[in-house]
Amino acid sequence: MGEFDVLHHIYAASGDLGPNVIVPPGDDMAVVAFSAKQMLVAVDQLVDGRHVDLARTPLKLVGRKAITRSLSDIAAMAARPVVTLAAATLPQSFSDAQACALADAMRETAATYGAPLVGGDLAHHVGDGPLTCSVTVIAMPGPIGPVTRRGAQAGDGLYVTGAIGGSLDDDGGGYHLTFEPRIDVGLWLARIVGERLHAMIDISDGLGRDCGHLAQDSGVIIEVEASAIPCRAGRAVEQAIADGEDYELLFTAAGEVPIVAADGTPITRIGTARATTPEEEPGAMMSVNGVMQRIDEHGWEHRAT
Amino acid sequence: MGEFDVLHHIYAASGDLGPNVIVPPGDDMAVVAFSAKQMLVAVDQLVDGRHVDLARTPLKLVGRKAITRSLSDIAAMAARPVVTLAAATLPQSFSDAQACALADAMRETAATYGAPLVGGDLAHHVGDGPLTCSVTVIAMPGPIGPVTRRGAQAGDGLYVTGAIGGSLDDDGGGYHLTFEPRIDVGLWLARIVGERLHAMIDISDGLGRDCGHLAQDSGVIIEVEASAIPCRAGRAVEQAIADGEDYELLFTAAGEVPIVAADGTPITRIGTARATTPEEEPGAMMSVNGVMQRIDEHGWEHRAT
Repeated sequence: MGEFDVLHHIYAASGDLGPNVIVPPGDDMAVVAFSAKQMLVAVDQLVDGRHVDLARTPLKLVGRKAITRSLSDIAAMAARPVVTLAAATLPQSFSDAQACALADAMRETAATYGAPLVGGDLAHHVGDGPLTCSVTVIAMPGPIGPVTRRGAQAGDGLYVTGAIGGSLDDDGGGYHLTFEPRIDVGLWLARIVGERLHAMIDISDGLGRDCGHLAQDSGVIIEVEASAIPCRAGRAVEQAIADGEDYELLFTAAGEVPIVAADGTPITRIGTARATTPEEEPGAMMSVNGVMQRIDEHGWEHRAT
Repeated sequence: MGEFDVLHHIYAASGDLGPNVIVPPGDDMAVVAFSAKQMLVAVDQLVDGRHVDLARTPLKLVGRKAITRSLSDIAAMAARPVVTLAAATLPQSFSDAQACALADAMRETAATYGAPLVGGDLAHHVGDGPLTCSVTVIAMPGPIGPVTRRGAQAGDGLYVTGAIGGSLDDDGGGYHLTFEPRIDVGLWLARIVGERLHAMIDISDGLGRDCGHLAQDSGVIIEVEASAIPCRAGRAVEQAIADGEDYELLFTAAGEVPIVAADGTPITRIGTARATTPEEEPGAMMSVNGVMQRIDEHGWEHRAT
C-alpha cells in the first residue's frame, strides 16, 4: 500500500458518519451541517515519548487517547461534540497496517463520543522521527453556553470530579490511556447547576497549575483544602496537585452542587474562591503544614525540563 | 521561558482577532460566531524534510506555508475562510524565540487571509524529531455552496489557474513557499461561472494525480492536452504533470470560462471531460507522442518511496 491506499482504507471505513456529514472525508474539505450560532474549537497533540509510550502501548489506546484528550476540552466548556479532525506524522518504520490501525482507533473513538472524524492527513517522517498526532475538535454550546476559565467569583466553591493523581504512573493502570472524557458530566452540570456554574477547566497540567489558570483568568484567589482532595487510591496529595493528565473537571460554582453526577461520578468540594487583597496577585494556594503556599506552578509542564 | 511563556506570548499577540472571536485563544476552546448552516473543515500537515527544509528556510516562510497550504483547500471548495487552528511539535533544540517566530508567522499569515488563528498547541519532542505542524482550517460555503471533486460532467472543459511545474525546484524561487492561496479566484469563479462550475481541486499531488482524483470521484474520463498546459517558465510538461505543490486551482466547467480572473490570474483550458466507454475505468489521460496514456499515478506521493 501507499499513502493513498491507506487513505482509501480510511475513506471506505467512513461510509456512515451520520446525517450531519454532507461531504465525507476524501474531498478537499469535509462539509458538515451546523445549526448553532457559535462554534467551539480546539487542537491538542499526542507525541510519542511525551504523552504516550508507543513501544509499550497498543495502537488502539494511542489512537483512543489522541481523541479523548481533545474531547476533554469539550467537556471543560460544557459543550456538545460535533466533529473531529486528526493529522498524524508516522515514523518511517510504520507499516500501512499500523497506519490503518491507528486511524481506525481514532475513527472509532471519535464516533463513540458523537464526534465523527471527518478530516485527516497522514505523512511519513523523512528521517527518524516519532509518531506525532494532532486532533482538532469542533463543538457547539451546551445548555448554558460555553463555560470558560474566567468566570470564577469570590465566594464560589471549588469542585473536582472523580479522583486525581498518578494517572501516568506505571502502576496506575494506565488511567491516562483509558479515561472517559467527562462530556456528559459537563453537560449535566450545566443543566443542574445552571448559571451558578461559573468557571470550568479539565485537569491536564495538574491540579495546582489548573487551579492557577482558573484563578488568574478570573482574577481571584483559589484556596485548596489539601485534606479534601479525592486522591486516586494510593496517591499522595502532592501527586494529585502536580501529576496532571487526570482529565477530570475542575470548576467553581455558587450555592449547592450535588455530590454525585447522574452517571455516578463523584463530585467533591476541595476549596473556595475569594477576592484578592490589595497585596495579592490572583492565583491558587494550598495550606501545607499550616502555611499557605502558592501552587500555581505545581503541575506538569508538557515539555522537557 | 517555558511552554507557558511561549503560549502567553501567543495569547498576548492574539488581542484583536476580529468581532467573530468571542473567546480568544487561552481557554480550553476558542468560541467563534458562525452564521452559516454548513461548515467546511480540513487539516493538513507540514513536516520538516517532507514539505519544507528547515535548515535553509526562514521560519517566517515555514509558518506561512503551514497556513497557506491548508487555506488552498478552502480555495478548492470555492469557500470563505472563517478560522484556523495550528499545532506544532518542535525539535528539542528549538529555542523559545524560534517557537514564537513560528507562531507569529502562522498568526500573521492566517490573519492576512481572513482566517484568524484561534487555537493552538505546542509540544517539544522528547528525543530527536523534526518540526511537525498541522493546520486545521474552517470555512463557510461561498456563492454556490461547496464545490467538490465529484461533480465533473462529460463535455466539461478542464481548466487550470496560473502556471504549474517545478514549484519545489531549487532554482524555482521557492514558489511552494510563497504562493498565494487562490481563495479570491475560487470565490470569483463561483460568482462568474455559477452553477456551471462543476468540480474543483487544488493541485498539491501533481496535475496527473489530481486530474485522476477529479475523474475518479466524478466517474468520467479526463483527457489532458499536453500542449495546452501552462508550464512555469523553463519547466517541461512532465514536471507540470508530476511535480505537485503548485496550489493552483484545477476545475471543470460547462460552457464559456473567462481566460483571466478578476485579479489577473490566467485561466487556461487544458482538456476535456468525457464519458467512459464500457471498457474504461474513470481516470485521467494525456496524449504522449500520439498515444493516450493514463496519468493518474503521475504525481507526487507525499511519503518516502
